[in-house]
Amino acid sequence: MRSNGVPEDKITGDADPYEKFVEFTKSLEMAIGNPMYHWCNLELKKYFGITEPLTMKNVKEVWDKTSDMLQNDPNCSVRSLIKQSNVKYIGTTDDPVDSLLWHEKIRADKTIDFMVRPSFRPDKAVNIGKDGFTDYMARLAASVGKDKLASIDDVTEALSERLVFFKNHGCVASDHGIDYVVANFADKATVDAIYKKAMAGEKLTADEVEKYQTYILLFLAKKYKALNIVMEIHYSCKRNVNERMFKIEGPDTGFDVIARNSCGSALSDFFSELDKNDELPKTIVFSLDHNDFNLIATTIGAFQSDECPGKMQMGAAWWFLDTRDGMEEQMRSLANLSLLGNFVGMLTDSRSFLSYTRHDYFRRIFCNLIGNWVENGEYPDDEEALKKIVEGVSYNNAINYFGIN
Amino acid sequence: MRSNGVPEDKITGDADPYEKFVEFTKSLEMAIGNPMYHWCNLELKKYFGITEPLTMKNVKEVWDKTSDMLQNDPNCSVRSLIKQSNVKYIGTTDDPVDSLLWHEKIRADKTIDFMVRPSFRPDKAVNIGKDGFTDYMARLAASVGKDKLASIDDVTEALSERLVFFKNHGCVASDHGIDYVVANFADKATVDAIYKKAMAGEKLTADEVEKYQTYILLFLAKKYKALNIVMEIHYSCKRNVNERMFKIEGPDTGFDVIARNSCGSALSDFFSELDKNDELPKTIVFSLDHNDFNLIATTIGAFQSDECPGKMQMGAAWWFLDTRDGMEEQMRSLANLSLLGNFVGMLTDSRSFLSYTRHDYFRRIFCNLIGNWVENGEYPDDEEALKKIVEGVSYNNAINYFGIN
Amino acid sequence: MRSNGVPEDKITGDADPYEKFVEFTKSLEMAIGNPMYHWCNLELKKYFGITEPLTMKNVKEVWDKTSDMLQNDPNCSVRSLIKQSNVKYIGTTDDPVDSLLWHEKIRADKTIDFMVRPSFRPDKAVNIGKDGFTDYMARLAASVGKDKLASIDDVTEALSERLVFFKNHGCVASDHGIDYVVANFADKATVDAIYKKAMAGEKLTADEVEKYQTYILLFLAKKYKALNIVMEIHYSCKRNVNERMFKIEGPDTGFDVIARNSCGSALSDFFSELDKNDELPKTIVFSLDHNDFNLIATTIGAFQSDECPGKMQMGAAWWFLDTRDGMEEQMRSLANLSLLGNFVGMLTDSRSFLSYTRHDYFRRIFCNLIGNWVENGEYPDDEEALKKIVEGVSYNNAINYFGIN
Repeated sequence: MRSNGVPEDKITGDADPYEKFVEFTKSLEMAIGNPMYHWCNLELKKYFGITEPLTMKNVKEVWDKTSDMLQNDPNCSVRSLIKQSNVKYIGTTDDPVDSLLWHEKIRADKTIDFMVRPSFRPDKAVNIGKDGFTDYMARLAASVGKDKLASIDDVTEALSERLVFFKNHGCVASDHGIDYVVANFADKATVDAIYKKAMAGEKLTADEVEKYQTYILLFLAKKYKALNIVMEIHYSCKRNVNERMFKIEGPDTGFDVIARNSCGSALSDFFSELDKNDELPKTIVFSLDHNDFNLIATTIGAFQSDECPGKMQMGAAWWFLDTRDGMEEQMRSLANLSLLGNFVGMLTDSRSFLSYTRHDYFRRIFCNLIGNWVENGEYPDDEEALKKIVEGVSYNNAINYFGIN
Repeated sequence: MRSNGVPEDKITGDADPYEKFVEFTKSLEMAIGNPMYHWCNLELKKYFGITEPLTMKNVKEVWDKTSDMLQNDPNCSVRSLIKQSNVKYIGTTDDPVDSLLWHEKIRADKTIDFMVRPSFRPDKAVNIGKDGFTDYMARLAASVGKDKLASIDDVTEALSERLVFFKNHGCVASDHGIDYVVANFADKATVDAIYKKAMAGEKLTADEVEKYQTYILLFLAKKYKALNIVMEIHYSCKRNVNERMFKIEGPDTGFDVIARNSCGSALSDFFSELDKNDELPKTIVFSLDHNDFNLIATTIGAFQSDECPGKMQMGAAWWFLDTRDGMEEQMRSLANLSLLGNFVGMLTDSRSFLSYTRHDYFRRIFCNLIGNWVENGEYPDDEEALKKIVEGVSYNNAINYFGIN
Repeated sequence: MRSNGVPEDKITGDADPYEKFVEFTKSLEMAIGNPMYHWCNLELKKYFGITEPLTMKNVKEVWDKTSDMLQNDPNCSVRSLIKQSNVKYIGTTDDPVDSLLWHEKIRADKTIDFMVRPSFRPDKAVNIGKDGFTDYMARLAASVGKDKLASIDDVTEALSERLVFFKNHGCVASDHGIDYVVANFADKATVDAIYKKAMAGEKLTADEVEKYQTYILLFLAKKYKALNIVMEIHYSCKRNVNERMFKIEGPDTGFDVIARNSCGSALSDFFSELDKNDELPKTIVFSLDHNDFNLIATTIGAFQSDECPGKMQMGAAWWFLDTRDGMEEQMRSLANLSLLGNFVGMLTDSRSFLSYTRHDYFRRIFCNLIGNWVENGEYPDDEEALKKIVEGVSYNNAINYFGIN
């Protein structure tokens, strides 16, 4: 909508909701080739039975119908949307300090017949260079009943304790959002000094930040391995690039961009450091830069093992790459350089309960890709073999990989 | 032609023109998949009515016919070619010191019914690290009636005065060709010292060059904003890479190559520095490296505003990328990450009056791309909506964006 | 197979060969879209007459038939496979210290009617930073009848002598596998000191390594030019990234990955340094990073000459890029930015005598690409012109370029 020149008032501001919807619709008409165009119309079709694309001609009609259904139609309750979407498992992302109280409530509710489990996302404990780190460490201390975390050993102990807590609440995956992959190895004494320097409020050098991050990530990776928790790494984003809007809107409001990083070498060094003592967990690597796909696909190939098929995974095309073109490029890279048949498939971190159609979108694009190969004679028209691959990438591989049951 | 082993004599040298044309034709026969193949045959068809592709079989015939037409056919005069091509507006690129005398003459000529306007291209004032900078500064001083530009304030004043002069001659756009995007901020005193050092003939460090360039580019950007002039940035070219040929032929003779740069972060920092005080002009960013497309498309997205739809633009596939593949990749990136419908479309910096067919080429490729989406059911077959998009990208968006009327 | 979770025992280990074949087959069923899938089935069809794709349903049958044929069928002898594949020329890659004894034996054998010639691959003499360098220098000294190579002049003399020896054995090409392209120029005295430092067992800085490598590569390039030997450069690989497996399996066992490098600028600087005194040999550049294709295609364009058509070549999609997608991208880049018609075509460094089908694979993909252009009307359906291009890229260009006759 910003790209269509819509004033902020009608995007994140106080304007009338219908006016905002009208502006959204106008923008959508310019969005030919954009996944938003497809997502929106898939949602209207699946959940609201609206088969005509949203345009300025039917905007009022669509608004009235969907508003009415969301308020009055029991099929549009959150639980019903989840049920209609045939959801087996929802992984939330949670901070290590989270009490997981709501997870306990959901588990206690016998009327809920899909799984909701926490995922461990300790970014705030990793981002030693960012504002709020010392405050966060106080909260992390409190979460394990301490006054403070005085040393790096205290930090890793606290994280370890919270990870076990998460595991006991059914956690099967962790998630890390990092600017770029780090492999700047240092011993405990060095990292302890860096930690104390940061806690004393002193500014760290880039080298010190990397050393701390490498140490914590290695520590956590080993724990993930021990607890059979999947490690997910998301990287190559530059966040909050618009200083003016950051002051007005704060973080996570649409002002992050793709970064270019030269951390391909660090990626294999990081894995090797873990693998050499058999401490490398199942790992899924996501880059926001599509130029990295082949590099990642070959790097995971160098660290596979007989623990399971596709222990090391390249993650599905993510965020800005979560488009038809991005997905096809990611899957072609995987097919060329790894085994597409072992791909655990689509993840979406959307917060919308209507966004399950994005999984449909992914599956259609996947099936279209391999269907074209079959039509071109590049793979035999062998329904049994194809069924296994399609069901695997769409569902079974993820179930097996994450150990969901 | 060089790729086909043709001696320089028959390319830039003194060989007989027809011999050169024969060598060009031989090379063209090897140029399957090259845009030159399509451009050449589009030109022959549109302006000379020759519908057979140029080959060694018809080379003499084509030579004779086109030579004859260019000399004798009034339809082949420059003005007629422009008229046939339905040209509304031609933007020349001009140095700030240019008197714009020819622009005044053209404007005074009432028989000219298309617009010809200057664009402001102050590369020589920005490239403090290159030979000829001090000489150029003397010319810039003279253009504002001064003996010399003694300080950085004198430089910015002179540029400002010339920019207003250009604006008064109808200038709507500026253009910057830079090696890579810079965001190395420094205060005026620092930059003043750097400028004086350069004017004293001393060699600058890379850091000093960046600081001066950042300062001047920020200054100009703010002026562009104030005068409603579009800022165009072209980057990621390495120039004159062949030392031997540079000595023989000089610059701009076909020895520039694509560079890889890691200036994505600088791009958003540069924009943010301007945007925070609402001093960011309408901007179009062109990279010669197609690996940057997604990065640029997300970066412009973080700086859009309600000034106009698509205030920030990713420029059309440029120079080496001005191919069917390059254009499709650029437009797919834009469609996925921005609003393709707001794209201002094709620019060509070709100096040939026959090269207007390149705009046809672009429009065909654009229409083919979206036509395929419609045929695949990825956008509805809604002629009214498509007409608006096609007319916008082909013509209206540029008219509105540059304020041509 | 590792990506399918197969234990190392059944890959490189001591497991029963048929069990390994079964595991290979299981993995292949997941390898939809992978070139291995196509290669394998092309080999089964061409050399064994098996027209059904290999699956777990026919694995025993295929194993029995191929085992039997390899042991008993005279058509499956190495020489017969080469003959069936219509091979004209085989270039082996050989270390400069190699005696070329087997090459002499092959040449003396009048029953061999295809050419087998050595290629000069002096990586061990270039890699001054790697283990074993001093030992290798002793072997290089021995190969020219010396006790030791005391100075950089001794090194270049020895390499020069071996190169002439190779040339006398029919060598037409050299090959260099380097991490990244270097252009760190230094004079002989500096490089001599670096060489002596390395020979004394001292550790070199990265800068010293680059200076030595640049010096040796420039020296060799000039010799190649003088002897009309083609220079091949392969770069952007990171080797042996898995420390654990390197200890178990050693080098070249499947643990190399794609690297990202910023050596595009060095590439043109290296060429310019040679070209300025007309000492640039015919050169073919291969990068393992497909993001480099356009950069390479423009760089070779800046150093073409009238020595021959396409003196400077971008190499065929190599190793990890040797896939349908990789080949198409490389050929599209070449078509857009150079003359596809002058491309010398496919090289494979496979060691398997069944892998000649990979050349079929390449030719099919090439013909499919240009066939689609013809069907789309992007090149005329001119059989004569197309025949010249297809025969050139498939065969004639390589024959002419390498001077094979």
